[in-house]
Amino acid sequence: MEREKALKLVKEQLTEHRYQHTLGVMETAISLAGRYGADEKKAELAAIFHDYAKFRPKEEMKQIIKEQGFPKDLLEYNAELWHAPVGAYLTETEAGITDREIRDAIRYHTSGRPGMSILEKVIYLADYIEPGRHFPGVDEVRELAKESLDKALIKSIQNTILFLLKKNLMVYPETFHTYNDLIKNQEA
Amino acid sequence: MEREKALKLVKEQLTEHRYQHTLGVMETAISLAGRYGADEKKAELAAIFHDYAKFRPKEEMKQIIKEQGFPKDLLEYNAELWHAPVGAYLTETEAGITDREIRDAIRYHTSGRPGMSILEKVIYLADYIEPGRHFPGVDEVRELAKESLDKALIKSIQNTILFLLKKNLMVYPETFHTYNDLIKNQEA
Repeated sequence: MEREKALKLVKEQLTEHRYQHTLGVMETAISLAGRYGADEKKAELAAIFHDYAKFRPKEEMKQIIKEQGFPKDLLEYNAELWHAPVGAYLTETEAGITDREIRDAIRYHTSGRPGMSILEKVIYLADYIEPGRHFPGVDEVRELAKESLDKALIKSIQNTILFLLKKNLMVYPETFHTYNDLIKNQEA
Repeated sequence: MEREKALKLVKEQLTEHRYQHTLGVMETAISLAGRYGADEKKAELAAIFHDYAKFRPKEEMKQIIKEQGFPKDLLEYNAELWHAPVGAYLTETEAGITDREIRDAIRYHTSGRPGMSILEKVIYLADYIEPGRHFPGVDEVRELAKESLDKALIKSIQNTILFLLKKNLMVYPETFHTYNDLIKNQEA
């Protein structure tokens, strides 16, 4: 799918603020893909569609998670996690994106998963460090992203878990399994 | 088993420093058991034996974990975790402690587990806050322990996970599951 067509489809789904974020993720993802050897065209499309389901009603997201065989334990954790798998599904059914690698990059862009592909890591990280992001620690991750995809990813996941712990919030198990997996492979 | 006999058995297994720690855990556990409604005699014995296996050779601990059906993934994580299940086992086979609640309190005193009993929580926390412990954050947990067993436990597990994250170390999944379980039940 051409960039302009993809952007047009996504723009209808998002607020202007979230659309600007998406443009930032797109530029960052293409750059990271070039640096770390992911397919730049896939990175572009995955980035454009990564938040496709962000503003869907919670009830619709719940139903899709139940009906499409996504892990039901998602529903016990923060609803912020839901738009990722639901977006992967709707990107196929509504926008016709059938590429498995793109779908998985959208699906795992919030939770991560053990054994992430380079494309999945690129989208996860681009979402975290795109130029519109401003929060404590983001500059450190931006710097790390220049030297190591995994080191930047580890730091971003550590920041996310620390944030949740300090707020007495639950941590989705897949997120800390991802953390352990990255640490284990770094140590190896 | 009488306290004096139990202490004698344990003293042979430990360094003097670790024996003094054990005495501190014993006093703290009895006090917490009285405050939060666990069996004080079981708390006393579980505390006395909680570090029984602390100084066993790693190879012996590995073998017991494999042969006695403890989760094998323990062996992929920090060896500091091993003495807890191994201690539960050896406390039965060498010291004759067959009480299931005491054994589980020893078994889960390092990792925790979802659905911990009050006795298990008491031993976990006593190990963390006994008077000989000196590290950042321990006084805050001591204060919390005066008002809520769960709040103190949550804070101690948060501290443990933060410590591991900041050192780029893996976190044993059962510890994360324990944290999520405590938060979930606190929110309910």
